[in-house]
Amino acid sequence: MSQSETSIGIVGLGLIGGSVGLAARAAGWHVLGYDPVRETRFAAEGHAVDRTVLDPLDLCECDVVFVAVPPPATLEALGVLRHACSVLTDCASVKGPIAEWAVRQDEDALRRRLVPGHPMAGHERGGLQHARSDLFSGAPWLLTPTDHTDPRATELVEQTVRAFGAEPKRLDAREHDRIVARVSHLTHAVASALVLVAGDDARFGGGSWRDGTRVAGASPPMWRDILLMNHAEAADALEALIAQLESVLSKVRSGDAEGLESYWEEARRIKHGMQTP
Amino acid sequence: MSQSETSIGIVGLGLIGGSVGLAARAAGWHVLGYDPVRETRFAAEGHAVDRTVLDPLDLCECDVVFVAVPPPATLEALGVLRHACSVLTDCASVKGPIAEWAVRQDEDALRRRLVPGHPMAGHERGGLQHARSDLFSGAPWLLTPTDHTDPRATELVEQTVRAFGAEPKRLDAREHDRIVARVSHLTHAVASALVLVAGDDARFGGGSWRDGTRVAGASPPMWRDILLMNHAEAADALEALIAQLESVLSKVRSGDAEGLESYWEEARRIKHGMQTP
Repeated sequence: MSQSETSIGIVGLGLIGGSVGLAARAAGWHVLGYDPVRETRFAAEGHAVDRTVLDPLDLCECDVVFVAVPPPATLEALGVLRHACSVLTDCASVKGPIAEWAVRQDEDALRRRLVPGHPMAGHERGGLQHARSDLFSGAPWLLTPTDHTDPRATELVEQTVRAFGAEPKRLDAREHDRIVARVSHLTHAVASALVLVAGDDARFGGGSWRDGTRVAGASPPMWRDILLMNHAEAADALEALIAQLESVLSKVRSGDAEGLESYWEEARRIKHGMQTP
Repeated sequence: MSQSETSIGIVGLGLIGGSVGLAARAAGWHVLGYDPVRETRFAAEGHAVDRTVLDPLDLCECDVVFVAVPPPATLEALGVLRHACSVLTDCASVKGPIAEWAVRQDEDALRRRLVPGHPMAGHERGGLQHARSDLFSGAPWLLTPTDHTDPRATELVEQTVRAFGAEPKRLDAREHDRIVARVSHLTHAVASALVLVAGDDARFGGGSWRDGTRVAGASPPMWRDILLMNHAEAADALEALIAQLESVLSKVRSGDAEGLESYWEEARRIKHGMQTP
């Protein structure tokens, strides 16, 4: 694929869509973008994208279209593009509903062209003004192709996000939802819980506090929707975390020095064995 | 106080003691240091400190002596320096036991010269090799003078740590222990709990995961001791966090969209109102 011959389309020019545009332009692609908000289109044109369009259907000629709108609006946006000839990929944090929707579609062409995806990158402040060309650098970009997805479509999306500096990883949609509940939804829920526990004492926090609560209170409507869309896995993850904290609590109460040290040692062992970006 | 006339002593040349030395030297003070480990003394001499000594009592002539050893060893180190004429300040993360010990001492001179302290700065990797002259820059340095502490001693320590770039804050020892259980001990316990829940799935984590688990598994023996020394407040803080997570869990289970959004909104309100360094 010669990038100069390829064009990228983006629906939704927020933090993710805007960063896709900046990363794609930096990689030499021609980028078209759509956003329903006039001011956002003005801000994006010539910056995050080469040109903006007034209708998502104007993106149909693009080779790949990234749908980067909030999770609940994703299915609607994909529906609008059902007759596009582009490869379609979305950025919703929950993939089960996208996969189910794709399988329900009667047009086999749409099912073959859809590569559900989820870039594991973001920021506690959303919006185009925080978009960065390196937002995806070194971050996993999870892809959950269905049984109907054309392997060439998956390869094209992998090739594209790799050019953004991301590390594409394929997995099953259900497995994806189980994993992100643990490594993403949970970290966001905990950051907010820590802030609610500390209240005004937060001003005494040092580095571990600053990092541990960075994403606290980020995009309340978005996180409301994500937890509801992924409620079963989110509930399992919360139960698992509560169980861990209950075990620390009982060790603290009983003065179990050995138990506390091995709890920390086990976390240390897993952390040093893991490869986070 | 002209800094050239003043000398700083340090007992324990690890991450905190080494950083105190580097910051004090950068601020123009003459710095003497003691560490029981010969290799550490060799590594520190001419680097983190101007000169090392072979006995903590050789620091008695210093104007201020920072005791930067693990919490359980702190009282012993202070005891060794009981007859020093220096102002003494420690760096233990738990202050109640230090304050109680000070009040129990019969020498009024020692009680007057002791300014219990706690720099709210650190790193998931300890040791002199990770010491930095700017470790305390912008971080709160909590001081818990007792009723017996000479106000001039407290002022001298405040003046000194301010020169390190830290922000000294005075508070009661019990209040300190309640606060740090929430803004520090809890963030460390949670980081390890998140890693234990995720296991191998950690490799899929993005930025929020990386930050939220940065301190996971840091210094198991140290955190074992800190949680045991501050067990009552640590247990309260863990209970409060578990209660918050239980409330999110019940909202997720019952599909309480409004409740989830207001949970995030409340965290957002507190976070934007707080001043972390």
